[in-house]
Amino acid sequence: MTGGYLKGRMRREDIITAAIEVYREAGYNGSSLREVAKRAGITHAGLLYYFPTKEALLAAVLERRDAEDTEREKLDIAPGIDLLRHLIALAEYNVAHRGIVEVYARLAAEAVAPGHPAHEYFIRHYRIARESALATFRTLAANGELRPGVDPEAAAVAFIAMEDGLQVQWLTTPDEIDLVGSLRFYLQSLLTVPLG
Amino acid sequence: MTGGYLKGRMRREDIITAAIEVYREAGYNGSSLREVAKRAGITHAGLLYYFPTKEALLAAVLERRDAEDTEREKLDIAPGIDLLRHLIALAEYNVAHRGIVEVYARLAAEAVAPGHPAHEYFIRHYRIARESALATFRTLAANGELRPGVDPEAAAVAFIAMEDGLQVQWLTTPDEIDLVGSLRFYLQSLLTVPLG
Repeated sequence: MTGGYLKGRMRREDIITAAIEVYREAGYNGSSLREVAKRAGITHAGLLYYFPTKEALLAAVLERRDAEDTEREKLDIAPGIDLLRHLIALAEYNVAHRGIVEVYARLAAEAVAPGHPAHEYFIRHYRIARESALATFRTLAANGELRPGVDPEAAAVAFIAMEDGLQVQWLTTPDEIDLVGSLRFYLQSLLTVPLG
Repeated sequence: MTGGYLKGRMRREDIITAAIEVYREAGYNGSSLREVAKRAGITHAGLLYYFPTKEALLAAVLERRDAEDTEREKLDIAPGIDLLRHLIALAEYNVAHRGIVEVYARLAAEAVAPGHPAHEYFIRHYRIARESALATFRTLAANGELRPGVDPEAAAVAFIAMEDGLQVQWLTTPDEIDLVGSLRFYLQSLLTVPLG
């Protein structure tokens, strides 16, 4: 039983890894479950056993991305200005990987409907993102690095919103929007110390 | 010829009006072209003559919404703090009309792909929105109402991003996100005078 369960877990993780590669290269519209199955070395029917819909697979892809981001943060980075620098580095990474940003933006908008396969994922994702940003803004405030008048809670909601909104504008007209520069400008405007 | 053209224009506008009603009530998933056709008093095939896809119809719905917003702005409101107050009032209106906000958010994310029927609409929409915000932030700066260090161009991009991003968070968890309050907080943080 345990062996079968473990094998299933591993197969599931292999499919997610294959999906990340496929979507990173081809974006939302250019990708198919068949292509992912092929890359993972599994039949299309086999893939559907683990992920009955494209949306369910994409939610798992985004969940993996969050877990990797969180893992990295735990290892290296305490809440505060270093975390903001890390988030800017993540934005730089995103600019170089348009496909996965498109998956995130599309799924976030579709999944606002309760009942969507990724709805629960996005509720969790936003809560964790806001909590992480809140911890950082509180640390900055305690260090005197947050501009007076900036409320950490409101800034946390606003910062996550800004990241999401900038991504959609950038995806629409990549030549007109400086995603990283805009994010840096916004974060700097909240601080009393240079973001660097 | 001209009579036929005019009749076609009017029919087209009637369909858009019907679609706005249907989507305002039922949201993105609850609506269908058949329901819109019924409301507009036209056959389904007749509707498809004017709008071959749901996406093309929704782009026209959003275009109408923009035109109405712009018309109102031109009549009453000069760039500056009154325009910001007007935008907050629009956000209050949106909170009471979830369906149309959902249409906007979903279509914006889908339409990042060149070739999507609403792609050109969103390029225009974002350009106009950013220009309007830029004019307002420049006026505020000239009046000494913009906080020193706030760059009007960066603030314009950031403000539109913030609006979009807040909508998606609010649509996902309406009970956890104060859309209007968050927007007000952000705008106030850019100003030296009370937003009121």
